[in-house]
Amino acid sequence: MSTLKKKVCFNILVHFNFQCKFIFSKSTLLHILLIYISKINYTPHIIGNPTMYEEYWKQMGDKTTVVIPGWQFISYFSDIKNVCWFLEPEFAKQAIRLHSLVGNAVTQDRYIVVGTGSSQLYQAVLYALTPTDSPGPMSVVSAAPFYSSYPLMTDYLKSGLHRWAGDAYNFSTDEPYIELVTSPNNPDGSIRQAVVNGDKGILVHDLAYYWPQYTPISHQADEDVMLFTISKSTGHAGTRIGWALVKDPEIAKKMTKFIEINTIGVSKDSQLRAARILQAVSDDYDSSGNAKKNEQFFEYSYNVMVKRWNELRAAVDKSQIFSLPKFPPGTCTFSGQTFEPQPAFAWVKCEQETVDDCESFFRGHNILTRGGKHFGVSPKYVRISMLDSNNKFKIFTERLSSMKF
Amino acid sequence: MSTLKKKVCFNILVHFNFQCKFIFSKSTLLHILLIYISKINYTPHIIGNPTMYEEYWKQMGDKTTVVIPGWQFISYFSDIKNVCWFLEPEFAKQAIRLHSLVGNAVTQDRYIVVGTGSSQLYQAVLYALTPTDSPGPMSVVSAAPFYSSYPLMTDYLKSGLHRWAGDAYNFSTDEPYIELVTSPNNPDGSIRQAVVNGDKGILVHDLAYYWPQYTPISHQADEDVMLFTISKSTGHAGTRIGWALVKDPEIAKKMTKFIEINTIGVSKDSQLRAARILQAVSDDYDSSGNAKKNEQFFEYSYNVMVKRWNELRAAVDKSQIFSLPKFPPGTCTFSGQTFEPQPAFAWVKCEQETVDDCESFFRGHNILTRGGKHFGVSPKYVRISMLDSNNKFKIFTERLSSMKF
Repeated sequence: MSTLKKKVCFNILVHFNFQCKFIFSKSTLLHILLIYISKINYTPHIIGNPTMYEEYWKQMGDKTTVVIPGWQFISYFSDIKNVCWFLEPEFAKQAIRLHSLVGNAVTQDRYIVVGTGSSQLYQAVLYALTPTDSPGPMSVVSAAPFYSSYPLMTDYLKSGLHRWAGDAYNFSTDEPYIELVTSPNNPDGSIRQAVVNGDKGILVHDLAYYWPQYTPISHQADEDVMLFTISKSTGHAGTRIGWALVKDPEIAKKMTKFIEINTIGVSKDSQLRAARILQAVSDDYDSSGNAKKNEQFFEYSYNVMVKRWNELRAAVDKSQIFSLPKFPPGTCTFSGQTFEPQPAFAWVKCEQETVDDCESFFRGHNILTRGGKHFGVSPKYVRISMLDSNNKFKIFTERLSSMKF
Repeated sequence: MSTLKKKVCFNILVHFNFQCKFIFSKSTLLHILLIYISKINYTPHIIGNPTMYEEYWKQMGDKTTVVIPGWQFISYFSDIKNVCWFLEPEFAKQAIRLHSLVGNAVTQDRYIVVGTGSSQLYQAVLYALTPTDSPGPMSVVSAAPFYSSYPLMTDYLKSGLHRWAGDAYNFSTDEPYIELVTSPNNPDGSIRQAVVNGDKGILVHDLAYYWPQYTPISHQADEDVMLFTISKSTGHAGTRIGWALVKDPEIAKKMTKFIEINTIGVSKDSQLRAARILQAVSDDYDSSGNAKKNEQFFEYSYNVMVKRWNELRAAVDKSQIFSLPKFPPGTCTFSGQTFEPQPAFAWVKCEQETVDDCESFFRGHNILTRGGKHFGVSPKYVRISMLDSNNKFKIFTERLSSMKF
């Protein structure tokens, strides 16, 4: 096959996920190429679509189906008595219930702020923590490797309230600052603590991956501001629902204000759907004494991650040119099992001295990754999603195991 | 009743919408007062909750019920081939179909960008129209009286990209600027054209109220960027769905980018629900040759507005101390009827010379309004929602008609 055909073939593989074993006519090739070029412009920066639990939800049948009549939930308001006036009480109830079941976060005496995904909550918390009357923007930092969207979300509007100040390890100041602590960390899965030694730091904990399929639950997190999202906990990214657990009512109020100005609240339909899904997860544990028909959600999702990490490690061992992070095992207070973290992303290092750009190296082998420089570290690292569909994950490990230098 | 009791009574009426005819004990009064004080801090700036079509949607029964199984629509993506990759094809189809039915906007050769309400689309369009490399923020203007949220949404993050520059009538510049043209206008219902005489202006048309229950449809709007929302067209504010019709693919792409960074797309569930509702509206017109069971939506909603405006005018005439805008009648290309605009808001002027602050004057009579200064004009004006529930509207007109100077 010619290089051009191979290139087109690769992109079809990436986008449409099927093996390319046929030869195109010149006109078909041109047509496909044009589609590909148009795609380049449009492709979003999201890599990692958490669709791997789809089979589980299929098995659950009607238990997680949401039904909303046209005349209900038409108001802007959900609960005018609540600080977060657009928070559906049923969603709040089920979020609290799930945290109580899993034991991963304290919810007592906390304010819940719901967001259109945790991205919106991240921006809401920056708005809430930065005084409008300060002379300049407040610095926002996170220890590298940090989630690649943080810099973008902090700076895209050139805000006078906050600015991205990079790697928390290289940061020192006498001024107030915000430090993001992502634990388990995106991209590398490590368990994190704050790293800046400043007395004027405000901490925000992004706990999107602090669920028992990804990491042993070691304690009930009890931080000032904790962010969660249904995209990663149950894999319902399309609903765009995240939530924050907030200690200080003034911060919860200002976060609510941000979401009020930004989107006048959060979809009621998605909150209701999220509530239904969280309810089904918890219900299955409450009724575990009865005859069980299905695996419970965290058992199923834990097993999926075990299998995938085994396959990934086998593929990495086979190729002999990559390495993965080492994680100490821990005992999970939720499941009682002792296991090593099995993060939602693989943080892979190209060990060959001559490979400087690991992302390009993978791309040359038809694997789409996100390189280390996006996360504030060396391009010898790449992040690969572990949460895609079974089919995509299979193709990925097959390709990885056959990679040679 | 004492003044304090009256004050508490008023606020209960506003928040809970029932008549206050009982006397409280001191301790109950204190308790209610504390609740009220806590509410003051939390109350959002939204006045005008479009719940008046609830009865109609009840009558429609299952036709507008949305059912979403737990395993479907879990992906971030809706249509990777589309510029707006998170746009549900079914929602796009139904939005186009409705515009084609009503004849209020050109959709051919337009890009559709879906948003979490039109507020998010407003911010997306500002982001899309302002170059990131410009030395200072671009001016954003609109002719007074302008929608009171525009200044807030433009400036709340102290963006270096754009800044609110106020009333378009007082604006002249040689620099590029953005002019918002809201037609019919919020708050005063007038039909608008651009007013700045600059050759570097970029126009954004907010057409949230350009539907045949509010104003005669005079032509198919054919502007560069047109914003719509389901909150005002069908009254489903809780779904938080708006859409933009955009001529230039580069602007559509950059708006999509904004929503990608801001909220990683828009709730699939709400798009599906909105699609179902728009479909039901259009279906009723397609099947109008058959035996009709219900009023069609725009017939129903037009009649509600006729009735409310008649009641409002009667109340204003009775009180003799207010005036309303005069609107020329027009023939609606959709319904064929000739009528005067009957806007979603009443823009009321206090005609008494001694009343400088019309909002306070209304508040003194237990009617919550938004004063002219929020809209960039004299405090002798107030905006009052015409879209609230039947019960609230009834209380409002009763109070209005009894108001004397």
